[in-house]
Amino acid sequence: MLIKQKGILFILSGPSGVGKGTVRKALFDKDTALKYSISMTTRPIRPGEVEGVDYFYRTKEAFEAMIEDNQLLEHAKYVGNYYGTPRHYVEEQIEAGHDVFLEIEVQGALQVKENFPEGVFIFLSPPSLEELKNRIISRGTETEQLVMNRLKAAKDEIELMDAYDYVVVNDQVDHAVENVQAIVKSEHCKRERVASQYKQLLEVSQS
Amino acid sequence: MLIKQKGILFILSGPSGVGKGTVRKALFDKDTALKYSISMTTRPIRPGEVEGVDYFYRTKEAFEAMIEDNQLLEHAKYVGNYYGTPRHYVEEQIEAGHDVFLEIEVQGALQVKENFPEGVFIFLSPPSLEELKNRIISRGTETEQLVMNRLKAAKDEIELMDAYDYVVVNDQVDHAVENVQAIVKSEHCKRERVASQYKQLLEVSQS
Repeated sequence: MLIKQKGILFILSGPSGVGKGTVRKALFDKDTALKYSISMTTRPIRPGEVEGVDYFYRTKEAFEAMIEDNQLLEHAKYVGNYYGTPRHYVEEQIEAGHDVFLEIEVQGALQVKENFPEGVFIFLSPPSLEELKNRIISRGTETEQLVMNRLKAAKDEIELMDAYDYVVVNDQVDHAVENVQAIVKSEHCKRERVASQYKQLLEVSQS
Repeated sequence: MLIKQKGILFILSGPSGVGKGTVRKALFDKDTALKYSISMTTRPIRPGEVEGVDYFYRTKEAFEAMIEDNQLLEHAKYVGNYYGTPRHYVEEQIEAGHDVFLEIEVQGALQVKENFPEGVFIFLSPPSLEELKNRIISRGTETEQLVMNRLKAAKDEIELMDAYDYVVVNDQVDHAVENVQAIVKSEHCKRERVASQYKQLLEVSQS
């Protein structure tokens, strides 16, 4: 490949319980060129964790200043701590030609869509609600009421599919990973990404 | 895959000499599920050829009636005979869930784009004009003037890249085929193709 192309931000999202983490891990086992988007947090660093590898660790004040300054592609608060996706890391990787991969729940993905619409949004879908229910139940940690609440939330999230560029069904992990890999490859062939570079290259090589 | 999806028409095109035929053959060796778009012609059937396999053979009158009736996605006349792509065959295959693949020169692709804009248009690009020139010369059948004419034509055709959805560089046949296969796979994951089907499926499976 003679053409230096910028990287692309891929966002893998979908309802809770659909298997985003499993698909992401299987994808990263197969594709070592992808960069995982490193989150920023205000929770304290834990033994064994490394700044800039597990998370970027920041104080609450620093984090809130970044929110103010629109330096986060998305953020949320869990149990009193902030978590978010720093824009700077993503843009740096993309400029260097690396694809960045972000696995995130649906509300976060919608925030990213607003702040970084040039990302490629992939919705991981369960084969059916029945199947999603089985998966949630098989975790064995939820009461029946919680299962119903999570299913209701999943249904609402599926309604948000329209904000996404692609839908990949997670019927089998391998199958889902293959489809995500095909999306990564084909996005790099999109005419609007490459046409001007090709034209340049073809001009230059005439002389 | 639980969802029955319609097929897609893929159009592989690009400047003369870029290697469309080679890429198409290599693709069909690897992917036997693709249907090749069978052309219609007014030239006489030759020994060993089969109606509906090599071509659909029609009289000049029948062909011209189809042109009138907008039943061809594209057509052209070479050495006194018509050649064209019948709409009916393509639509039949697509309805049956088969992807159809059409390899065609740039002018034909632009006609298809007008008559079948829902097709997916892939531009096969040479790595450089230098390389294209070498490929044309290496055929050994062209005078210098003819080579220059073909290069000029290729440059004009490259300007038409903007009408396409994807650009695949034919630096190596295997590489080009992989990219085309990724495009085929990812197009089937496009949200606008599948979202309504998924929503239906998820509704149905609730009961």
